[in-house]
Amino acid sequence: MDEKIREVMLSDSFRKFLGAEVEEFRPGYARVRAVVKKEFLNFHGVAHGAFIIAVSDFAFAIAGNADNVRRMALNINMNFYSAAREGDTLVGEAERITGGKRVGFYELRVSRMGDDGEGEIIAKGTAIVYGRGESFV
Amino acid sequence: MDEKIREVMLSDSFRKFLGAEVEEFRPGYARVRAVVKKEFLNFHGVAHGAFIIAVSDFAFAIAGNADNVRRMALNINMNFYSAAREGDTLVGEAERITGGKRVGFYELRVSRMGDDGEGEIIAKGTAIVYGRGESFV
Amino acid sequence: MDEKIREVMLSDSFRKFLGAEVEEFRPGYARVRAVVKKEFLNFHGVAHGAFIIAVSDFAFAIAGNADNVRRMALNINMNFYSAAREGDTLVGEAERITGGKRVGFYELRVSRMGDDGEGEIIAKGTAIVYGRGESFV
Amino acid sequence: MDEKIREVMLSDSFRKFLGAEVEEFRPGYARVRAVVKKEFLNFHGVAHGAFIIAVSDFAFAIAGNADNVRRMALNINMNFYSAAREGDTLVGEAERITGGKRVGFYELRVSRMGDDGEGEIIAKGTAIVYGRGESFV
Repeated sequence: MDEKIREVMLSDSFRKFLGAEVEEFRPGYARVRAVVKKEFLNFHGVAHGAFIIAVSDFAFAIAGNADNVRRMALNINMNFYSAAREGDTLVGEAERITGGKRVGFYELRVSRMGDDGEGEIIAKGTAIVYGRGESFV
Repeated sequence: MDEKIREVMLSDSFRKFLGAEVEEFRPGYARVRAVVKKEFLNFHGVAHGAFIIAVSDFAFAIAGNADNVRRMALNINMNFYSAAREGDTLVGEAERITGGKRVGFYELRVSRMGDDGEGEIIAKGTAIVYGRGESFV
Repeated sequence: MDEKIREVMLSDSFRKFLGAEVEEFRPGYARVRAVVKKEFLNFHGVAHGAFIIAVSDFAFAIAGNADNVRRMALNINMNFYSAAREGDTLVGEAERITGGKRVGFYELRVSRMGDDGEGEIIAKGTAIVYGRGESFV
Repeated sequence: MDEKIREVMLSDSFRKFLGAEVEEFRPGYARVRAVVKKEFLNFHGVAHGAFIIAVSDFAFAIAGNADNVRRMALNINMNFYSAAREGDTLVGEAERITGGKRVGFYELRVSRMGDDGEGEIIAKGTAIVYGRGESFV
C-alpha cells in the first residue's frame, strides 16, 4: 500500500482520542484494539454501546477506504450480545463481504479478549459504504 | 421523577467524556447536545460515524432506562444522511415508539443545528432495548 | 406522472400474486393495502414476518422508482411490534426521508386497520435504495 | 426432535404457498430452497426483495422455534448484494449466533445456486427473536 494512504489511514482523530490501536489492515479488512477505560462506561457500569460500535467503526473506516476511494457510511447495524467491563480489551474487526467501487458491504465484529488470548464476540453487525469514485490522496 | 434515578441518568461517563449535555429527559424520551470537536473527526475531516451514533446513544440510554428498569441495547441501526464538521452543534434524540417492561423500540435522530436554531437531521435510525424487569436504583 | 411509468409501477407481479392493492402513489411516497389470508400465516397462526415486510416493500418499490430512475434496495431493516391475524387488513407505506438520484433513504410502516378506519402501526423500519441514474421507461 | 414439533415446523402456510421446501433443520439452524417463479418478480423483472427475505425468513422461523419455545421476530435486517432472476434456485439459511431462552440472534443468508451446485450469496443479514419461554407443542 502507498505510504501516503497508510499515513491517512492511521490519522483517525477519534480513534486516537479513544486510545484504540490499529493492529492490521489491508484493503477490505482492518482490526483495531482498545481497552475499556472508566471514561467509556455508561451508568450501568459497563462499556457504552456507542464505544463498542466505535471500536468496530475505526476498523470499518480503514477497511472501507484503504483502496484510496473516499467513501462514507450509509448504514451501520449492530447487535449486542453481551457486555464489556472496565479493563476489558476489545478487538474490533471490519471485513468486506462484497461490493464495487461505489457501494460496499461489510461485516463488523467486536470481541472481548480472554486471558488465553482468545476472543469472544460480544457485538456483531453490518455496514454499508458509498463513494462517488473520488480518490482522497 | 425520583431524584436518585435522575442522578443516575445524568452520570453517564462516556457522555461526560465527550462533552455532551442532557437538555431534556423523561421516561421514553431524551435529548442531548454536543459540539463536534477536532478530536471527534475521522481521517476525511468530518465527524466520525461512531461519534454521531454516540450522541443519539446517550439520549437512548436515558430514554430507555428512565423508568428505573435496567435495560440493555439489543440492536442499534443507523442511517447516515450527511456529514457534520468541526464546530457543528449536534442534537441527539431518542424517542420510544412502543414496548413494554422487557422489550422497547426507539427512534434515534441526530440533527445539525443551524444558525437560525433549526436542526437538519443528518442521521436517523432505530434501537431495541431489552431488560429482565430489574430496577437499578 | 407519465402514463407509461404509472403502468410499470402498477405491474408488480409479486404484489398482484399476494393480492395487495396500490391505494396512492407519487414520487417518494406510496401506500398499498392487503388482507392477511390463511396462506400468509406462519406456524404460530399469525401473519408471516416476510408477508408483513412484503406489504411495505410493495410500497417501497413504487416510492423508490416513481421518478423513472431504476433503483434497487441495498438494505431493508424492519422492527416488529405486534402480530397480525387472518382477516386483518394491513396498510403498508413507504416514504422518502432524504436522498438524491443515486442513494435514497426511506421509512417503511405497516399498520393494521381497525374497525374505525384507524390504523395501528405493527411494524416499522427503514430502507436504502441505490441506482446508477438509468431510466427504465 | 419430537415428531409433533417436526410437524409444526413443516406446517408453515406462507412457505408452502410460495413453494419453498425445507431441506434441513435442527435447533438453531434451518435451510430452505425455492425457485424464483414469474409471480415472484418485481417490475424490474427480478426477484422481489420481499421474496428474497421470505426465503430466509422461512428458515429463520424454523431455526428460531425448533426447541419448542414460541418466539417472534423483533427485527430483520437484510442487505442485498445482487439480483435473482426467473428460474433461479435460491437457498435460504438461518443460523443461530448466540442467545438464550428469551432472546436469540441469527444470521440470515440467501444464495443463488449455480449449475455446479455451488451457491453465491445474494443477500445476507441478521434477525433477532424474542419469546417469553412458552412452549407451543
